[in-house]
Amino acid sequence: MPFVRISVYPSTPPSDRKAIADAVYEAMRETIGIPEGDKFIVVTAHPAEELFIDPTFMGMNRTERFILAQIFLSQGRTVEQKQALYKRIAERLHSAIGVSTEDVMIVLTENTYRDWSFGNGEAQFVLNPPAWVRKAAAEN
Amino acid sequence: MPFVRISVYPSTPPSDRKAIADAVYEAMRETIGIPEGDKFIVVTAHPAEELFIDPTFMGMNRTERFILAQIFLSQGRTVEQKQALYKRIAERLHSAIGVSTEDVMIVLTENTYRDWSFGNGEAQFVLNPPAWVRKAAAEN
Amino acid sequence: MPFVRISVYPSTPPSDRKAIADAVYEAMRETIGIPEGDKFIVVTAHPAEELFIDPTFMGMNRTERFILAQIFLSQGRTVEQKQALYKRIAERLHSAIGVSTEDVMIVLTENTYRDWSFGNGEAQFVLNPPAWVRKAAAEN
Repeated sequence: MPFVRISVYPSTPPSDRKAIADAVYEAMRETIGIPEGDKFIVVTAHPAEELFIDPTFMGMNRTERFILAQIFLSQGRTVEQKQALYKRIAERLHSAIGVSTEDVMIVLTENTYRDWSFGNGEAQFVLNPPAWVRKAAAEN
Repeated sequence: MPFVRISVYPSTPPSDRKAIADAVYEAMRETIGIPEGDKFIVVTAHPAEELFIDPTFMGMNRTERFILAQIFLSQGRTVEQKQALYKRIAERLHSAIGVSTEDVMIVLTENTYRDWSFGNGEAQFVLNPPAWVRKAAAEN
Repeated sequence: MPFVRISVYPSTPPSDRKAIADAVYEAMRETIGIPEGDKFIVVTAHPAEELFIDPTFMGMNRTERFILAQIFLSQGRTVEQKQALYKRIAERLHSAIGVSTEDVMIVLTENTYRDWSFGNGEAQFVLNPPAWVRKAAAEN
């Protein structure tokens, strides 16, 4: 149940924008167990006069190929899963479009299984809770 | 205290964008008790090369009329209120612009009454807590 | 560790957009103790047909110079720090570009120190926790 907002600079070609979305989706599939087809991603290009980033904070070398992926997802992932997610997103983006992993920033924001409606005005995970939701509900 | 980001495709005419914002606002008024005038909504159109959605995930049939409403709001709504909100948003969007309810996706992200400044550099709900805030504060 | 999304109307000149980002960054430096260089801010202009705001909600007089700053940051700030942040952002925006403080709206959304990767596919605050992270971890 992730929804992802990705910010890039306008020099990122359209084919790379699709490759970026695909790479983030595949990395989520591999590391945090999202179901097949759970892909809702928007990539937005912002000119340098609107997207302000520090080029060296935390010892990185950020360039005009900078990618910021803000991922909204349900709570329940361990810190180890999050670390695997960050690593895999960076690896896949490097493989897919040759971007340096130093140009990949990721921010997570969590909600709960109650906070999603995938259509029809229904809360699908409340109506038909999968195993991980039943587990989460039992813990709350 | 909601702030809403709505994503659509560029084929959505401007009159529909206003109707979408109005429908989401009215549905929030009806189901989660927001005050009159608490309307802060941005609608953004993203071309298909930037807005990637799975057309069938969770059994829906999503089209070029897809609407994703991401709602940032204070915590405190019950799951029943959230379910009523999803249902009413989908119903109102269908009534307003004829979109299929299968094309309506909703994602909530919660914060607290302390996390809002409506102007003047003040935290209005901390300074003058309404009843629901006093109740929430007593529970924390 | 904030990531900030700022929404304005298109009449905001580019020089003001940079000044707005700078003002929000400096206010965060002064009031919530973010490190130097922790500046990741995107400013987006939305035409009036897409950015819908109530002009008077909560007694303000909002104009075409309206600024909405949505700040994603780690939890741990007190309500007093948040109040200082709101006040300082409004003051700095007024000083920097002459905007009325009634035109400044701020929304916070919190996550945790585990939810940030600043590059290299690593969770920097998990690997090398600064003092405030060790304190937060001890409390959870």
